[in-house]
Amino acid sequence: MLNDMYRSRKDNKPVISERKDPVIWSKTGSTESNGVLSRAQEDFYEQNGFLFIENVFSADEIAKLREEAETLRKNGQSEEDVIKEPSSNAVRSVFRVHEKNQTYLDLMADDRLAAIAEHILNDEVYIHQSRVNFKPAFKGKEFYWHSDFETWHTEDGMPRMRALSMSITLSENTPYNGPLMLVPGSHKKFISCVGETPDDNYKSSLKAQEYGTPDQDSLTAMIQKHGLAAPTGPAGSVLIFDCNTLHGSGNNITPFPRSNAFFVYNSMENRVVAPFAAKSPRPDFLATRDSIRPIRQKPHRTARHLHAAE
Amino acid sequence: MLNDMYRSRKDNKPVISERKDPVIWSKTGSTESNGVLSRAQEDFYEQNGFLFIENVFSADEIAKLREEAETLRKNGQSEEDVIKEPSSNAVRSVFRVHEKNQTYLDLMADDRLAAIAEHILNDEVYIHQSRVNFKPAFKGKEFYWHSDFETWHTEDGMPRMRALSMSITLSENTPYNGPLMLVPGSHKKFISCVGETPDDNYKSSLKAQEYGTPDQDSLTAMIQKHGLAAPTGPAGSVLIFDCNTLHGSGNNITPFPRSNAFFVYNSMENRVVAPFAAKSPRPDFLATRDSIRPIRQKPHRTARHLHAAE
Repeated sequence: MLNDMYRSRKDNKPVISERKDPVIWSKTGSTESNGVLSRAQEDFYEQNGFLFIENVFSADEIAKLREEAETLRKNGQSEEDVIKEPSSNAVRSVFRVHEKNQTYLDLMADDRLAAIAEHILNDEVYIHQSRVNFKPAFKGKEFYWHSDFETWHTEDGMPRMRALSMSITLSENTPYNGPLMLVPGSHKKFISCVGETPDDNYKSSLKAQEYGTPDQDSLTAMIQKHGLAAPTGPAGSVLIFDCNTLHGSGNNITPFPRSNAFFVYNSMENRVVAPFAAKSPRPDFLATRDSIRPIRQKPHRTARHLHAAE
Repeated sequence: MLNDMYRSRKDNKPVISERKDPVIWSKTGSTESNGVLSRAQEDFYEQNGFLFIENVFSADEIAKLREEAETLRKNGQSEEDVIKEPSSNAVRSVFRVHEKNQTYLDLMADDRLAAIAEHILNDEVYIHQSRVNFKPAFKGKEFYWHSDFETWHTEDGMPRMRALSMSITLSENTPYNGPLMLVPGSHKKFISCVGETPDDNYKSSLKAQEYGTPDQDSLTAMIQKHGLAAPTGPAGSVLIFDCNTLHGSGNNITPFPRSNAFFVYNSMENRVVAPFAAKSPRPDFLATRDSIRPIRQKPHRTARHLHAAE
């Protein structure tokens, strides 16, 4: 049994502790570009826990991704890995898109995404989770504040903070249609959550999260200290954020849906073990366990990697 | 019986029609300042249907208004004119604040507000409605899109578009805590709504509006044409908006409540008659009817006013 480096859902009081892992696992201290991110981009990500890059994908590429997303949405109405809005039949998320669809499989391994993930995590990477999120026009509901890592650690058994998310915007993100809000710098602290994980928690938490959300006092302290950011931009942009960056989003009453493709890249050395605070792990469509394999062979690996898992 | 100039809630299909009333009732075409608003401010309001003025009230004034709002909130838990959030016991709005509290009575008649209302409406004015809105931190819910005038006309019997709202920000409005969103230019069209008004509609509509909201097609057309605006700024700012400007706001998951004081100024010549599309008028706390009197004698009146009501 691995040591639990980020204890959560086991105590009666929340505790804010320091992050015990690097943010940029391949960080060398060099002022040179690494060929993947500029030094300024890398520094921004290290300090803030996220990075927004506009216009990574062309209009044609986005049109194709939107078309495939629409097919996935329509065809997936009855599948377990298609999640509806809490108070309507509108589809909120379709999971496992990289296994269901060639276009999303190609996207997952696209060098514009994969090379950044491999660089930041300094390892070969695999997909811990993939999804397309639809935030419907007029009635898209909120996602409350959370650190993804807190859930992945307690419910999925992800040992260390050596994972990141990439959100590829399939529609314009404006200040008005419920864009993702992040707490810059929050990735450097870990807020433990109170309350035991109920069985099959994921069935409700994917609609509206109740367990694994930080308490109001901790949230207030963090947001008062660090402020908020909500990157906005055209379709085809990429938001990269650390697994432990606090984030959430408001609802969407505008006529403009907000949809994005979402991949979680995890280091091959950080593969999941038994959950740290749940009886049984979540299903494979939420947390890859049965078929962990690198999305591609990475040409180079540096010496600076930690043996976290296994 | 007055002619119904803005027919709504009587037909099966929504209709978008032209506004039949001026926006600036005292507009003279002069390029001189009128001593109340600059020419640029007046033009902006005329074209967009709103105007945001920062730092109208001092920090001391706002502190006092917040203190009194807190007292009103605490003391008003059981009163009919105190409205709770749809799914919690948190107070959403306290009405009739200008009748309950001397500080808000003074605010209503403050020259920094009243002179602008008198100028735009070109008449003595009275308070059609007053309230303090609290959008609680973490769980403040949305206000869906609507034109205030549509409700005031159909349910309260306000004949013409000769009223405006002033929202005085009691806390900072940020892009993140569910600020009011407006559709610039929407005040020049009237979107009729479908569906008869149910009896006592106000009891649910103040929590979550269902009747008197524009259909999705009309909203999409208006917002695609005109875009959206969400003025943000420090506490002590004033948002002035026309009675027919479409507006709404998203929810608030941030730790920062968003509260404001809200006065509806109506022209004395536009006082309410029988409702245009409801069996009986809403109670006095929502729409002054029994005690209409000008908030102050206006020193001058120009010749250009229309006999709308009576």
